[in-house]
Formats: sequence, C-alpha cells, structure tokens
Amino acid sequence: MYAGIVGPGEGATDAECAIAYEAGRLLARAGAVVVTGGLGGVMAAASQGAFEHGGMTVGLLPGSRREGANPYLKVSIPTGLGEMRNALLVRSCGGVIAVGGSWGTASEIALACRTGVPVFAIGGWEFPAEGPIRMDSVESAVRRLLAAA
Amino acid sequence: MYAGIVGPGEGATDAECAIAYEAGRLLARAGAVVVTGGLGGVMAAASQGAFEHGGMTVGLLPGSRREGANPYLKVSIPTGLGEMRNALLVRSCGGVIAVGGSWGTASEIALACRTGVPVFAIGGWEFPAEGPIRMDSVESAVRRLLAAA
Amino acid sequence: MYAGIVGPGEGATDAECAIAYEAGRLLARAGAVVVTGGLGGVMAAASQGAFEHGGMTVGLLPGSRREGANPYLKVSIPTGLGEMRNALLVRSCGGVIAVGGSWGTASEIALACRTGVPVFAIGGWEFPAEGPIRMDSVESAVRRLLAAA
Amino acid sequence: MYAGIVGPGEGATDAECAIAYEAGRLLARAGAVVVTGGLGGVMAAASQGAFEHGGMTVGLLPGSRREGANPYLKVSIPTGLGEMRNALLVRSCGGVIAVGGSWGTASEIALACRTGVPVFAIGGWEFPAEGPIRMDSVESAVRRLLAAA
Repeated sequence: MYAGIVGPGEGATDAECAIAYEAGRLLARAGAVVVTGGLGGVMAAASQGAFEHGGMTVGLLPGSRREGANPYLKVSIPTGLGEMRNALLVRSCGGVIAVGGSWGTASEIALACRTGVPVFAIGGWEFPAEGPIRMDSVESAVRRLLAAA
Repeated sequence: MYAGIVGPGEGATDAECAIAYEAGRLLARAGAVVVTGGLGGVMAAASQGAFEHGGMTVGLLPGSRREGANPYLKVSIPTGLGEMRNALLVRSCGGVIAVGGSWGTASEIALACRTGVPVFAIGGWEFPAEGPIRMDSVESAVRRLLAAA
Repeated sequence: MYAGIVGPGEGATDAECAIAYEAGRLLARAGAVVVTGGLGGVMAAASQGAFEHGGMTVGLLPGSRREGANPYLKVSIPTGLGEMRNALLVRSCGGVIAVGGSWGTASEIALACRTGVPVFAIGGWEFPAEGPIRMDSVESAVRRLLAAA
Repeated sequence: MYAGIVGPGEGATDAECAIAYEAGRLLARAGAVVVTGGLGGVMAAASQGAFEHGGMTVGLLPGSRREGANPYLKVSIPTGLGEMRNALLVRSCGGVIAVGGSWGTASEIALACRTGVPVFAIGGWEFPAEGPIRMDSVESAVRRLLAAA
C-alpha cells in the first residue's frame, strides 16, 4: 500500500512535524510505503517517522538532482518536474494524509480530490467543497487511509 | 503575452461561461495568447471568446488524443499527462484568470500561487491564504493580468 | 494536421537547415501545424520556413522559460520538462520528419517508432531496425507524411 | 548509487534476460538501487536478480496503475507518463546498462547520451555516433558503471 504524506516544507510548525512523524511511524508499522515530496518540513518528518521504524520511504523530488533531499529516503527520484511532481505523488498513492496548509499542499489536495484519491486532513486549510476528510487524530487518519486502500 | 483562463469544465454555469467568453475576447483584443485545458465549460467559452475575435487559442489537453477538444483551439496539444497538465498550463502563462471553482481549478490556482504566477479570480472559492487576487469585473481582471505580465 | 520536424540544434549543417526550411514551407502550404522543440538549428529553420509562408508554428521548449526560443514560433510552450519534452512533441504529432542526426533527434525517432508515429527521415543516422522511412527528397517526405496523417 | 537497467520487454531473449538478471545481482551486491521500467523481459529479469539478492528495486511504470508491474519491485511508481517515463528513468540514474535492442531501449540510450548519463551496452544495436560504451561482459559493465557514478 502506497500512502502519501503531504504538507508544508520550510514553513512547517513543530506540531505539524510531530504529527507527520507519527503518521510515518504508524504507516511503516502497517507495512505501507510512505511517499513524500522528499524535501524538508512535513516531508522530512514523515519520512523520518517511517524510516526509523523500518518502513519504506520514497521521495519524489522536484529538481533534477538529489540536492535538498532529506536523509530519510530509501528511494529518491529526482523528477526534474518542478511542482508538476505533486501530481505524480498523488497518482502513485492509494490515499494521502495532509498535515498543515500551504499552496503546495493545497495543490496536492486538489489534485487528489480531482482524481478520486482519498485525502485525510489533519489541521490545515478549510476548502469550500466536499473532498478532504477532516480527522481529529493521526491514528484515525492512518486507520481510515489503510481501510480506503 | 500568454494568459491562462481556468475554471470548471462540465459543471460550469452559464454565468461563468459568459465571463470566460468575455475574458477570452478582451485578451484576444489585447493580443494575448489564451491558454486553457482545452475541454468544455469555462475552457471552451474562453477559447471561443478569443477565437471569434481573432485571438490565438491554445489547449493543453489531458489525454493523449485530441478527442474532447473544444472547436475553438488554433493549437491543441494532447499532453497525455492527465491532471499533471494543469501544472504545464500554469508554467506556460504569465498570469491566470480563474472563473468559478472546482478541484481542478483549485489545483491550478494553488500551483500558480506556489510558483509565483499571478492569479486573478472572478467568483469561485475562497482560500484561507493570500494568493489569488479577487476581482469584481472581467475587465479589471484582464487589465491587471496584462499589467502584471 | 500536426507535423513534427526534428533534427539537430546547434550542430545542424546549412544543408540540413535548408531542408528543414523547405519542409516547413511545404507543410505550411498544406495547412499543417509545424511542431518543433523550439530552439535553433533544424528547429529554427523548420519554424522559419512555415512562419514565412503563413503557417502555424509551435515550439515545445525544454526549459521553464522562453529564453532560447527561435523567433518564428507563433506559440511557444516552456514545458520545463527538459529532454522529456521530446516525448511530448512526438505524442502531439501525426507524423514526424527527421532531418539529420543527433542523440536528441535519435530519441525522438525512437519514441515515435515505439509509439507508432510515422517517421520520414532525410539523411541522418541509420538504425538497425525497421521504423523510420528513408526519403530521398523533402517533397516526398512531406507528401508521405500528409498521406499518413 | 542509482543504476538503470534498460532493454526489451516482451521481445527479450533468454540470453538477454540472463544477462539482465546477472547485472541486477551484481548491482544489488554493490548496494546500488536498480531502476527499470517495471514491466517484463529485461526489466523483470534485472529486478529479479537484484530482488533475490537483497537489493533495492524500483520500477517506473508507464501506466497510471500498477497493472503489468513485475513482482520483483520493492517500489513501483505508476507514472502515467507513457513512454515519457523513459526520460524519468534516465534522469534518476547515475548510469545505465543497456541489454539488447528495441525502439524503447534506443530511446533510453539516446536520452542518456543526450543528457550525459553514461551508458554501458551489452549486445543490442550499433549507433553511428559516440555515446554508449560497448562492454564484453556484464561484470565489466557493472564495474564501469559503479566507477562512473
């Protein structure tokens, strides 16, 4: 099972990173492959949580080199696609957990909702349409994602 | 000058299509190339407005064939990228006018805001962050877009 | 009808550019849209031949900006895809004329042969498999391409 | 170190698959990540060789679903890019081993040569330009690739 974890990079808060780390940990325990955009903030925390608990971590990097990749990726793909790689991330996952809000995160949530990939959101932006399912806890978000896949 | 016009396809209202048509017309008169996702609804209306007033119209289609393209495109590119083509549209434009709201539209707005492409929004969704500039009229949206480019 | 013209950029010879110009001219006369990679050499010559004879010219640029685009493009798309845009070019055309040889050109010929897009080659590399159809003259290459589409 | 192994899918010979398997095995032993197009033939054999010897295997699939993926992939990415994914494979690798010949394989060799990614070829097509380095044995191909990275 491939699970995306999306959220802010540089602007991520400590609380968001803690949630992302826990999501990565729980998904790794469940045997899921954790896919992120491969950079810092929520992406790094999610990867770290999975990596430190034996999980498989994949980073789909925006650049055409591996610079800036976080050190918790077992596989990194320098896509050279820029922000277009957000669509590649969504496409490769059976579900996405969104932690916090940013325009990059919003693009991933929107692409997922557009293409029928379930999104479970912890905090972050409110959208004026049905789509992302808001969750109160990371445990329930992971449980719902695993059930959806 | 390349101007994107984004908005709902099948779900577009008559009012949204009228605004998109007018945006296409005004941009064509100003000599801009109008770029859309190439399908129906807002995309078709914007293309028609530009096409019927001598403008250049480009459609970046999601599929790998030209089926479903609206008949107002002087150039159509079947990208085969699916919704990933939304990022290609944003990347190729100096500014974007958004008419109405949908998840596809939201993905284009978010990608534009993420990458610094100015977005002028007429109607549509509210987002909880600075980014899209809300406009009261299509005339002012076109004027602002032309000035930004 | 969308026709690709592919060939070397910087390394193109005068003879190759003359052939590309003539291919562009003939395709423009036949009402075809001429699609190239948008840069110099064969790409520029083909675009110029079509542009100067009233044809539609499209350049799918590798970079994410329009720098380096030749001045004969009615529509340019800065894809930001790098050499991945070679596949976009092939995908968007009903047939391709290849003039001269280079690794970039070879990638386009190979992608076209792989995906069933007919390739008509004037000069350039020999390949050890059926695929590109070798033509003696640009007139016959254009005629065959138009018939194939 | 990321190493691509490219070659024919359905048309691969037993001898080519044996070489690909051995290349995967040797690369896995050296700790390299083996990246392929994720389908059958040479791609499956290379993945199997690495997988059965504890290596990391990545498949960049052309479709937007995982159907057709070989069973030896630790990570599969359904890119939905079609043959455009050949460029993604080349971009993500520090070097490529090509086993046998086909148009798809030729596109990968050409893209690698175009972008400066070293290619070590065992059998397969001759090209009329410098680029792929022809190797007599899979051992020397792997050694050269590891040294180049």
